[in-house]
Amino acid sequence: MRFEHIRHKPPTPLDRERELVIALAPMRSNVNLSRIVRLCGCAGIRRIIQCGSGKVDREIARDAADYVEVIQRRSLAPAMEQLARDGYSMVGLEQTTNSVCLFEFPFHRKTALIVGSEREGLSSEELAILHHVIEIPVYGQPASYNVATATTMAVYEYCRQFPNG
Amino acid sequence: MRFEHIRHKPPTPLDRERELVIALAPMRSNVNLSRIVRLCGCAGIRRIIQCGSGKVDREIARDAADYVEVIQRRSLAPAMEQLARDGYSMVGLEQTTNSVCLFEFPFHRKTALIVGSEREGLSSEELAILHHVIEIPVYGQPASYNVATATTMAVYEYCRQFPNG
Repeated sequence: MRFEHIRHKPPTPLDRERELVIALAPMRSNVNLSRIVRLCGCAGIRRIIQCGSGKVDREIARDAADYVEVIQRRSLAPAMEQLARDGYSMVGLEQTTNSVCLFEFPFHRKTALIVGSEREGLSSEELAILHHVIEIPVYGQPASYNVATATTMAVYEYCRQFPNG
Repeated sequence: MRFEHIRHKPPTPLDRERELVIALAPMRSNVNLSRIVRLCGCAGIRRIIQCGSGKVDREIARDAADYVEVIQRRSLAPAMEQLARDGYSMVGLEQTTNSVCLFEFPFHRKTALIVGSEREGLSSEELAILHHVIEIPVYGQPASYNVATATTMAVYEYCRQFPNG
């Protein structure tokens, strides 16, 4: 047989720790939050900053609930300012003026990916702290990706550019 | 201001209809099914083949519930054989022997992406119909992506390679 299942394949080792941090505006949905936590766990991302009172559902996040550190902050803008001072390239995921298509965006290794909430996205105060905004083309209906789906695409693209960390 | 919100940006027009079809093994979770339907709607994919008795939740799929045709089939292998006869490149999403990393996989424009169920993945009968198997590297914990998350990454990569259809 040409293709045979490989069950429980061990994870690909990273040459270095991922320098990608995800910072989330208050998510309306714990499901979206928990899906993003699982995504980060699988992708080798060790740190999420979460604003608001969202709770991680361990049924959804699985082992990522332990693998990923979820840091709670009261509001996003001060957390972003700290990340900018720490030398992160500040990249928002949003549709704005001057946004760049994710297909063509070269990430810095040390990046903070800033993700807005499901309805409101990122505020103008938050947008002002960003160095770049990336957007993902939508081709059909509905006119926007779910927030966890969009985050998945951005994380995938980062990992594609830095397959070994 | 450098970055200003663009609300309700119209979708990017495709130069031609997407020739990507998604065929799903019976999903255990209607949430995963419905997330994949929304994903396809946003990505301009007009056709999903679904096996099993899953129901699309319109709250999750949104307008994609109308935009995407969800074709019901009793079992996956005969549906796959039909797609192969229709000239589709048959690409499975799975961890198998001889699978290729999604990062390095050049899609054919006319592709059927075959997605296994949450637990069992694709059967050996289904794997035997495939031309290619793609896998997505996992770097941490848990050791596998959620099925809708993995499908999101494969659809993103296809759209990246064919940004205009």
